[in-house]
Amino acid sequence: MAEAEQKLANGTARIDFATDPPRYRHWKLSIDGKAATLVLDVDEKGSLFAGYDLKLNSYDLGVDIELADAFERIRFEHPEVRVVLLRSGKPRVFCAGANIRMLAGASHAHKVNFCKFTNETRNAIEDASAASGVFTICVINGTAAGGGYELALAADHIILVDDGSSSVSLPEVPLLAVLPGTGGLTRITDKRKVRRDRADFFCTTEEGIKGKRAAEWRLVDEVVPTSRLEAAIASCAQDEVSAGRTADAPAGIILAPLYRTIAADRRDYQNVSVIFDRAARIATVMLRGCDEPAPASAEAMVAQGAAFWPLRLARELDDAILDIRFNEIDVAAILFKSEGDLRLTLGYDDFLDRNAAHWLAREIRLKWKRVLKRIDLTSRSLVALIEPGSCFAGTLAEIVFAADRSYMLIGSREGDNRPPAEMILGDVNLSGALAMSNGLSRLRTRFLGEPDAHDKARRAIGEVLDARAAEALGVVTFALDEIDWDDEIRLFLEERSSFSPDSLTGLEANLRFAGPETMESKIFARLTAWQNWIFQRPNAVGEEGALKRYGTGQQPVFDTRRV
Amino acid sequence: MAEAEQKLANGTARIDFATDPPRYRHWKLSIDGKAATLVLDVDEKGSLFAGYDLKLNSYDLGVDIELADAFERIRFEHPEVRVVLLRSGKPRVFCAGANIRMLAGASHAHKVNFCKFTNETRNAIEDASAASGVFTICVINGTAAGGGYELALAADHIILVDDGSSSVSLPEVPLLAVLPGTGGLTRITDKRKVRRDRADFFCTTEEGIKGKRAAEWRLVDEVVPTSRLEAAIASCAQDEVSAGRTADAPAGIILAPLYRTIAADRRDYQNVSVIFDRAARIATVMLRGCDEPAPASAEAMVAQGAAFWPLRLARELDDAILDIRFNEIDVAAILFKSEGDLRLTLGYDDFLDRNAAHWLAREIRLKWKRVLKRIDLTSRSLVALIEPGSCFAGTLAEIVFAADRSYMLIGSREGDNRPPAEMILGDVNLSGALAMSNGLSRLRTRFLGEPDAHDKARRAIGEVLDARAAEALGVVTFALDEIDWDDEIRLFLEERSSFSPDSLTGLEANLRFAGPETMESKIFARLTAWQNWIFQRPNAVGEEGALKRYGTGQQPVFDTRRV
Repeated sequence: MAEAEQKLANGTARIDFATDPPRYRHWKLSIDGKAATLVLDVDEKGSLFAGYDLKLNSYDLGVDIELADAFERIRFEHPEVRVVLLRSGKPRVFCAGANIRMLAGASHAHKVNFCKFTNETRNAIEDASAASGVFTICVINGTAAGGGYELALAADHIILVDDGSSSVSLPEVPLLAVLPGTGGLTRITDKRKVRRDRADFFCTTEEGIKGKRAAEWRLVDEVVPTSRLEAAIASCAQDEVSAGRTADAPAGIILAPLYRTIAADRRDYQNVSVIFDRAARIATVMLRGCDEPAPASAEAMVAQGAAFWPLRLARELDDAILDIRFNEIDVAAILFKSEGDLRLTLGYDDFLDRNAAHWLAREIRLKWKRVLKRIDLTSRSLVALIEPGSCFAGTLAEIVFAADRSYMLIGSREGDNRPPAEMILGDVNLSGALAMSNGLSRLRTRFLGEPDAHDKARRAIGEVLDARAAEALGVVTFALDEIDWDDEIRLFLEERSSFSPDSLTGLEANLRFAGPETMESKIFARLTAWQNWIFQRPNAVGEEGALKRYGTGQQPVFDTRRV
Repeated sequence: MAEAEQKLANGTARIDFATDPPRYRHWKLSIDGKAATLVLDVDEKGSLFAGYDLKLNSYDLGVDIELADAFERIRFEHPEVRVVLLRSGKPRVFCAGANIRMLAGASHAHKVNFCKFTNETRNAIEDASAASGVFTICVINGTAAGGGYELALAADHIILVDDGSSSVSLPEVPLLAVLPGTGGLTRITDKRKVRRDRADFFCTTEEGIKGKRAAEWRLVDEVVPTSRLEAAIASCAQDEVSAGRTADAPAGIILAPLYRTIAADRRDYQNVSVIFDRAARIATVMLRGCDEPAPASAEAMVAQGAAFWPLRLARELDDAILDIRFNEIDVAAILFKSEGDLRLTLGYDDFLDRNAAHWLAREIRLKWKRVLKRIDLTSRSLVALIEPGSCFAGTLAEIVFAADRSYMLIGSREGDNRPPAEMILGDVNLSGALAMSNGLSRLRTRFLGEPDAHDKARRAIGEVLDARAAEALGVVTFALDEIDWDDEIRLFLEERSSFSPDSLTGLEANLRFAGPETMESKIFARLTAWQNWIFQRPNAVGEEGALKRYGTGQQPVFDTRRV
């Protein structure tokens, strides 16, 4: 269900993540050779929910859906792009951050999901740079406050105009009693490595920092007078165009709209269906394999474009997960199932491996990496059910490893003449190409305590694993025969749904991420968990709290006890 | 102020962290050669607060204060000890974990502080093993549930009796709707590296796991039948005694009770005073240096024992910080000041460096490491004021680097004939001997973005730094002259006190810990922040929540929305 507290402004009942540049209301995407420009010019009246205006280039989820879409299109539709300029279309303001009235009116669940999505969008901007050589330059000609500066922090290079008033700031603590929770605190300490006492000063100074000091403290990379701004941008962009991505990137593909039907209790895409059992609070996600073998050449893949099975499946799965996150918050557990030819499925991974140097094959792998991370970070119990007819091979097997638990059926069911369930591991499961946000592959993370098991899994690449073999190898949790299957899984799911949803969120957020932390994982752990805590506290969200009282003329009243 | 919700059972107004073995009500410490035994035999009627009994070896803060004290005494009073046995004095139960009625009745602030202290105690058990060669064996002859098993997880070796009923469990999620937040989730994933799907099963199975499966899943190290238990313990202990710590450790020193006077607005120890300005919500901690130079020999240090200045100061400071954390929760900021001879102070660091191989010198450094970490983890704004007459050298300079901000006065004050403020860095500031919980020294963390500044600091070891030099070196935040000093600091503190305490807690918890995460830092970040979030949620603490309803016969009622 959409937010009870807020009504969607467009009269629909669901938040829709599908968009494309002609429909953008807040961003303008233009391509000029190897440079793309994204201009933020928020339509004040274009809020996602009713009840607030998006003043001063402030944003809500609707604005961020467009930004996320724009970066997807740059990577797939314009692979020639090496530089993205992020700019404001409004005078004297770059971006005022997340809209405060939206935050004040949003439910806790929406605030948490909103921040998670905006964090994922910013991580994707950094991934485009690190993995695809798309260098992002953020031009701040005006004020970049809170989430506005956090957006800038996702760029590779920040240019601040030195005009006596343009500034960067993170005024969340002094103004709103919340954190700069869209990666801001982590990026100033871990990406820009600002000295902690300076960071403390900066984050408690409402008006922020401007001019030379901003560069000296590494809050921005370059400070230039207005008169030199365009020259500085051109120079920086030109350096990157010359230095960057492969010289002769071919034309991109078109990310055609996803085919999707929405019924009361199900969504159907071409290769994904989602079935809701609302009484049991379960969403079953069925992933369908491809009937056709992988194409013979990279050219054939490009010709298929968005219809190429691995890309279509990734996009459909991504949309389905976001739909559950935002529109189905009562779902306790997601059951992943698959159906299709196991070997054909693995054939697509082999194809992507063989064509790893091709831009589109690379982008498809990177897209899967992002989608799988999105699954890792989805706060619902994740369960994989591996049954006869399923096709959890290679990339799809990652979903089994992303699950909190997996169950595999031993043998066939009576009356079902399909052969018993099987799995196959591919190189992709051990190469790290689909690493989690902790920087390790899911199997490496899984087997941190059993290096031998990891070696065994490597030796098993390409082997057909039945349920007992998969259980022995440790790649599934439990292998069950038909006699136990239905009852065990029913009881497990009933029990799961009976637990406190909050404690499951906390449990899963801890158990899923063993091992090292990265800047990305720190954002979703240390930073996000603290922000979620603050989003519960009366000092922020109570009737006398800062978020509620902001802009009313009334001062917030705080419980002064430190916790 | 002590908890408004709960009254201390002993009729006093403050929680006192001072204790010693003759006064223990819950633990029995006995020493037999190189083996110590700590028997947990909780006095049901010995609760810290009124209103609940400590049944089934469950614990509250009072029980943990004794455990923390016992490990301090083992390290300082019994340096010959190589093995600690943790056992239960009750039949059929090892420990039932944190007392649920205590948790249900405690304020949010107390729950958070309680968990932080118990986490620090468990980290200290591991530190005793890693840094001092004190191997801990936990014997589970009965049930170890929740915090009981988390205590076991801090040990090096867990022996579980295989009697058909003894078990380990983390039933927090299914029973109480909270997390195993005293390191449990992090230690099963990162210390014992239990496979994540097995961990999921384990943490959602109320009755836990017993027998061989507990060993197969690495939840315990050894499973033995009752008949072989004593032999197995003796064998394991003997192995460690033979393999362990230096053969001929001399006799220890006595940790004499701290001299301390408590008045309405101040505490006075021999080398520490704490002055409360309650209107301003500020505690000033004055650290006093030593008038005497460091002794000539390690033997003289041993002869001074607990009166040896670095040890006494560390213990007093530790007690003062804990007092503020638990008894003064309205304090917004702690101001650290010092007075004493700068060179004499650094002389003690030189002395500890020269005698680094001596057991007592090593233990004193390790004690400082723990105390400084306790400061890092104290959720109050930390400010260092460096004024004429101060002695922030070497180890004491770490307090300046632990502070969120530091201010150093340029020149002298009118009418004050003391020379201007100075600082001196010592080897100890760069060696990593006092590393933070992220595994890096405070200066390394501070200068993550400026490796040159770190090199410069290294070259400045031993140099006398005035305010401008310290500011140029980047080791203080701001150098101010007398004209600005009073106003700047007053305005800063007034502003700080006006901010939401919660947002400051979140801000500081993020800015203080740049760089890598360790198991220890993960416990205080990912795990603790999520637990604090859950400790706010109605599903746990509301009138219909699981924590409130536990034991009442009524089922909890949950808001089923996942966040």
